[in-house]
Amino acid sequence: MGEFELIRRFFTRPTRRAALGVGDDCALLAPAPGMQLAVSSDLLLEGRHFVSTVAPERLGHKALAVNLSDLAACGAAPLGFTLALALPQVDAGFLEGFARGLFALADAHDCELVGGDTTRGPLAICITVFGEVPPGRALLRSGARPGDDVWVSGSSLGDARLALEVLRGTRALDGSDFETTRRALERPMPRVALGLALRGIATSAIDLSDGLVGDLGHVLAASGVGATLELDALPRSAILRAQPPEVQRACVLAGGDDYELAFSAPPRAADRVTEAAAAAATPVARIGRVDAAPGLRVLDGDGHEVAAGLRSFDHFTTA
Amino acid sequence: MGEFELIRRFFTRPTRRAALGVGDDCALLAPAPGMQLAVSSDLLLEGRHFVSTVAPERLGHKALAVNLSDLAACGAAPLGFTLALALPQVDAGFLEGFARGLFALADAHDCELVGGDTTRGPLAICITVFGEVPPGRALLRSGARPGDDVWVSGSSLGDARLALEVLRGTRALDGSDFETTRRALERPMPRVALGLALRGIATSAIDLSDGLVGDLGHVLAASGVGATLELDALPRSAILRAQPPEVQRACVLAGGDDYELAFSAPPRAADRVTEAAAAAATPVARIGRVDAAPGLRVLDGDGHEVAAGLRSFDHFTTA
Repeated sequence: MGEFELIRRFFTRPTRRAALGVGDDCALLAPAPGMQLAVSSDLLLEGRHFVSTVAPERLGHKALAVNLSDLAACGAAPLGFTLALALPQVDAGFLEGFARGLFALADAHDCELVGGDTTRGPLAICITVFGEVPPGRALLRSGARPGDDVWVSGSSLGDARLALEVLRGTRALDGSDFETTRRALERPMPRVALGLALRGIATSAIDLSDGLVGDLGHVLAASGVGATLELDALPRSAILRAQPPEVQRACVLAGGDDYELAFSAPPRAADRVTEAAAAAATPVARIGRVDAAPGLRVLDGDGHEVAAGLRSFDHFTTA
Repeated sequence: MGEFELIRRFFTRPTRRAALGVGDDCALLAPAPGMQLAVSSDLLLEGRHFVSTVAPERLGHKALAVNLSDLAACGAAPLGFTLALALPQVDAGFLEGFARGLFALADAHDCELVGGDTTRGPLAICITVFGEVPPGRALLRSGARPGDDVWVSGSSLGDARLALEVLRGTRALDGSDFETTRRALERPMPRVALGLALRGIATSAIDLSDGLVGDLGHVLAASGVGATLELDALPRSAILRAQPPEVQRACVLAGGDDYELAFSAPPRAADRVTEAAAAAATPVARIGRVDAAPGLRVLDGDGHEVAAGLRSFDHFTTA
């Protein structure tokens, strides 16, 4: 099977929203008049962003999910995406599974594959996603203000990292618990509905890809503020709660791969936050507050500051 | 140097056109009201799309050039791009050169870097480029009609492939000639001005990345037509003309990496084509005509058909 047959067979579907889809030099999108276009791009490599044993369907899902999560963090409505794919060989079984997972999530968000590129090489997936947002309504990292509450979505922060540690052999879980956490790692659900519902309510937002401490740190730096979090308020699963306290702490604070939204909102908007979360069918928890003093403090149940050194994942400085 | 310092140091510049540039979850573009957005994405891998010895500045240039070439083939005006980059390590010398080549070409086309991703891994570059085109004015592959002339831009088709063969050791050139052809391979100039000038004149267009026969074949298939080309009309350099006839033929017909535009236009529009080319300061040559009968025929100087078997490059079926 050649490159063009591969594209035709696995990645060409009737165009619904785009003016022109897969198969020309460019795709043509027609954003709704007056809307801004939100754009994000992520490159996923085997061995770094996913393990070689991941099910192809989950890989297809996750490759798009991490990009939709960026749209969610901006409060943008998904529109379309491009897919650039390097494959060591043409493996129809792999491609069928990958396309199934990719398109199931794409369809769930009415987000259309409009173009891309395929080449032979070590497995690599680069997706660029496009969404729409009315001018001035995007959720940014720079809007957190002292006194704002800090919120996070989801009920199982850190489960993805726990699964990664099991895959690495540093932790052990029984089969069913491992499957639950592995699902969090390999099949994250981007919080698109919540991001849309928080427009006009949240003062800042970010999606959690590298870990809460590091990602929230970007918001604090961009906003010129600090924050204090309550460790016990961080939502975690019963599976993670069964782990030693230092494992729980590392997973929730610096785990990575959560793809939840962390966001800020004024205390007077707390009811509107919970209403938005209910409308989006997404759990949220208030986990701290924004301070004028720079830096991020995390307090344990006794009000003592948790030691620093829980850094976030960095592709070039983390082992 | 960490991931975020790398982005700040080499890839963050003041935003000129985008509503929001590098540094948030998404970039925000504001296309001019009523314009369609043209999108294209290319993934370049070391060892497949470029040699490890390429100068970083040229690699930065070419990574964007191949994407701008897709906008050119659509007649779209460049707007911005994202860059996803996998690097084996942080090498400031490499990154400075890469960024210099990238931004020099970007600035020449007022095309802004708006976001992206960096990760550690085997050197890989994925650029997604965005351009604007008025609705209904994009140059497509599907518009060629029997009787149209076939045109190609440039004056040195096949030089890029000749340089590749020298790098591979199958051909030899003296130093100065090799440098000239190597420049064609590593520093192609996307025909953006020509693509814009051909709107409303050309009936179809494509950019030549995989070789004239294969790329023109996509146009013929999409248009439901065939074509006859005159081998002697294909523009080539004095350097290529000094090569044996079979080498010339392979390089111009199936060379790849030309990044010229092949396009069709009615014979009555020939003057408008040459005026558009002059306005864009880009040489063009009439190389054949579109036929109703499917298939692509190439005739030599005696009117004999050149043997088939000159296939185009395919990442999965070409050795």
